[in-house]
Amino acid sequence: MRVRTVLEGAGETVAIDSGGPFVVIGERINPSGRELLAELLVKGDMSLVREEALAQSAAGAQVIDVNVSALDVDEKRILPMAVKEVAGIVDVPICIDTSHHRALAAALDVCPGRPLVNSVTGEKASLEVVLPLVKDRDCAVVGLCIDEGGIPKDSSSRLEIAKRIVGAADEHGIPVEDVVIDPLAMAVASDQHAALVTLQAIASICISLDVNTTLGGSNMSFGLPERELINRSFLAMCMAAGLTSALLNPLDVEIRRTVAAGNLLMGWDEYAMEFLQQWRSGW
Amino acid sequence: MRVRTVLEGAGETVAIDSGGPFVVIGERINPSGRELLAELLVKGDMSLVREEALAQSAAGAQVIDVNVSALDVDEKRILPMAVKEVAGIVDVPICIDTSHHRALAAALDVCPGRPLVNSVTGEKASLEVVLPLVKDRDCAVVGLCIDEGGIPKDSSSRLEIAKRIVGAADEHGIPVEDVVIDPLAMAVASDQHAALVTLQAIASICISLDVNTTLGGSNMSFGLPERELINRSFLAMCMAAGLTSALLNPLDVEIRRTVAAGNLLMGWDEYAMEFLQQWRSGW
Repeated sequence: MRVRTVLEGAGETVAIDSGGPFVVIGERINPSGRELLAELLVKGDMSLVREEALAQSAAGAQVIDVNVSALDVDEKRILPMAVKEVAGIVDVPICIDTSHHRALAAALDVCPGRPLVNSVTGEKASLEVVLPLVKDRDCAVVGLCIDEGGIPKDSSSRLEIAKRIVGAADEHGIPVEDVVIDPLAMAVASDQHAALVTLQAIASICISLDVNTTLGGSNMSFGLPERELINRSFLAMCMAAGLTSALLNPLDVEIRRTVAAGNLLMGWDEYAMEFLQQWRSGW
Repeated sequence: MRVRTVLEGAGETVAIDSGGPFVVIGERINPSGRELLAELLVKGDMSLVREEALAQSAAGAQVIDVNVSALDVDEKRILPMAVKEVAGIVDVPICIDTSHHRALAAALDVCPGRPLVNSVTGEKASLEVVLPLVKDRDCAVVGLCIDEGGIPKDSSSRLEIAKRIVGAADEHGIPVEDVVIDPLAMAVASDQHAALVTLQAIASICISLDVNTTLGGSNMSFGLPERELINRSFLAMCMAAGLTSALLNPLDVEIRRTVAAGNLLMGWDEYAMEFLQQWRSGW
């Protein structure tokens, strides 16, 4: 069954659609590993946030993730500020990325449209605080396949957590199409089967649950050289397994090219029109 | 169940293994679209055949495909000559690539080890002439998912043909592990769903039949720009679907890099040793 997760920005509606094409969520507004951004966020300086929002949107990101989590950043104050800032300059929907539920509530208060909340986990405490906020706001939520026991090593346990999240959402009155499952990807350098388990989890979740899926971050290649090669190969593999959105760096031209090729190969690009247009414009 | 298709060359044994890693069959000894090679083959000049065999083997091809089919080439005379030539200078197994059964019989007569016969189709006439040669020689065979009705547009009909080929092989006393199914890939430029159908066929054949799979040629990107981008993205996707070998150009560094990344991501490269070694040696 085809599932559409409808997101709304200040001026644009975007659907993550199990029938494709792939939706790129721009990942760059995230201070993890980016000292300058972290420093500016501590001061409440939104200049780089604005810059990254505009650059990613111009590069084709259909959703902009906003994450301000860093040491010394008061998320409850800074997250709504950043969300407001981004919503003020780009039309596309926002993905509010925080594990801090008060920051989430404050950000939801100022966010226009229908954002994607990133994220709820399979932990009872998380389900109980995040889902009511999602229901109250009538928006969509990313469900991470992790629970009190951590991230399971096998795909069937991740599927079980996904089922539990979908079930809990349903109990809160949130329809399945508003839950986007992130099966999580661990570093392949520390666990040889990490990527394979994620591929298997994507496939089994897509088959068993009729939900959309997403994948956050590019941690899977952590600790290895040629991370872009590994990331783009993994992206193509995930698309083949059924993934229909991901947090990616849209400024990486090879990622954009791989998404275009993937859409073409999945049958999501009639007459190769999108592929050819991007090729003609020099990607 | 893990399936191993064991091939032997003049000096090396190679197994196509459903548990990986991926086996690259060098595709370059093929006069299709290569005028110079065709001209030399007509004259019985093996210089370029030798050169391509050495170059591909040096670049990591684990099997060398030998195809001499072109206008004015007498396959029955030239194919055994080329096979003998290749077997004389590389250790790896040979894939004897012809639709001409007398040429196949003559090439099998001079080929050392345990070659891969490429190919038999689901057509009655093909099954009846090729399978006895394969059984007689105790080697392996590629089964193409095409029959009297052509190449089916849908994956389930391709699976049906694959089943028929495996069944016919069994009747001839050829075990399932010596049949490698090629689900075929058509040009995505002329059929939007061509690549997707191939991905679905790979997955369903791997799940239903316990056979190894391969894919020939790079026709899928025919008629489009950026063929290497499309081919390497498709390769990664096919690996995720279960493909464990393919006819590829091993001299294309991006193909080699994608195979290395794919092996790593499929969990077939313990401690990333192969990936790191190739990276250190500059691919």
